[in-house]
Amino acid sequence: VVGRYPSLMRDQYHVELDGISITLVEMATLVSGAIRDATTALLGADLRVAEEVIASDNVIDALQHDLDNRTVDLMARQQPVAGDLRTLVASLRMSADLERMGDLANHVAKVARMRYPVVAVPSELLEIVEKMAVVAEIVSNKLAVVIRDRDTDKALQLGVDDDEMDILHRRLFVALLDPAWPHGNEVAIDMTLIGRYYERFADHAVSVARRLYYLVTGEYADI
Amino acid sequence: VVGRYPSLMRDQYHVELDGISITLVEMATLVSGAIRDATTALLGADLRVAEEVIASDNVIDALQHDLDNRTVDLMARQQPVAGDLRTLVASLRMSADLERMGDLANHVAKVARMRYPVVAVPSELLEIVEKMAVVAEIVSNKLAVVIRDRDTDKALQLGVDDDEMDILHRRLFVALLDPAWPHGNEVAIDMTLIGRYYERFADHAVSVARRLYYLVTGEYADI
Repeated sequence: VVGRYPSLMRDQYHVELDGISITLVEMATLVSGAIRDATTALLGADLRVAEEVIASDNVIDALQHDLDNRTVDLMARQQPVAGDLRTLVASLRMSADLERMGDLANHVAKVARMRYPVVAVPSELLEIVEKMAVVAEIVSNKLAVVIRDRDTDKALQLGVDDDEMDILHRRLFVALLDPAWPHGNEVAIDMTLIGRYYERFADHAVSVARRLYYLVTGEYADI
Repeated sequence: VVGRYPSLMRDQYHVELDGISITLVEMATLVSGAIRDATTALLGADLRVAEEVIASDNVIDALQHDLDNRTVDLMARQQPVAGDLRTLVASLRMSADLERMGDLANHVAKVARMRYPVVAVPSELLEIVEKMAVVAEIVSNKLAVVIRDRDTDKALQLGVDDDEMDILHRRLFVALLDPAWPHGNEVAIDMTLIGRYYERFADHAVSVARRLYYLVTGEYADI
């Protein structure tokens, strides 16, 4: 193909390949907004924002559905070489992780809605949940850049962020297990699930980063 | 290809396609054994069985890794037509769901190990957790048959089983929220996570069944 086109033109196939990457970045950006807004709803007992996050999960799902159809369609029409094929297969997996991250933001928003007008998070846990939420937002923001720029350094950083998430997650359990815990089981159950949602959110982000790292370098990253 | 081979012989390509399906059935069978054994470990505080489940998760992971490599390799070498390509893409997704089901069985076993020699499940919740575990084992057993026989009726049954799982899951929360709950937060947290592991296990099984149904019928099942 090289030389058949003016250097600034890309053939249709490569335009479509780029388009898949662009949609993955778009998904990561939406997911980042979703977890940020879900956190706002959770920590501020903001019902309107919670409803918005819940309603917008469909947008992320639809984006994934459309992206996956385009990806499989491209595989079928273009019979890509092994390298491109691996990129396309990785895209399918990344979109599944990103879609799941949207679900998890949705779950956080649903806890906020369920407990409204009460703030689901008790005051002494606000700081730790907020820190987990900040890490979640950071990893999803970085993820958009990792995919867009094929940035392997940033991909590795996500492993460090995820370690921080795990530390916060353990701190949350320690707080829940305090013998002087005054809030009863309902709050403990909510906080157990909330903690798991944020932690799984970061896990899926790391999974995407790991795939991107492998695509770019051909090696498995220790993240 | 038809007519180029004696009727009882299959060409290499179709042998490999069948092999992928056979490995998916094998994964479903292993996952079913894993959740059954994890339940044994959980309800009987059996450390040896818990350790076996935890150790054998590697087998399921390795099976997925090998299967996915074979699948992508087949795509690259055979340039399959659209129908076969969709089957192969679906196989990648099914193997991801099955691998995750193995992880969830592993999580159940880890709770059993963490609380050993105490039984992690308090006596008044044994019945409900056992029922959730029975449903989990049923769905994974059915799943092996669904994949092996491309059985769409059984695929639909998984939706009914999953509804039962959701009812049990809600019953578990009701029990945890009983104002007379005597066990404190640690047990409540364990049970919240255990409940979620079984429920997610069934969700992933339904996801596999849904994909199989679509592959066979070309229509989306309402499960």
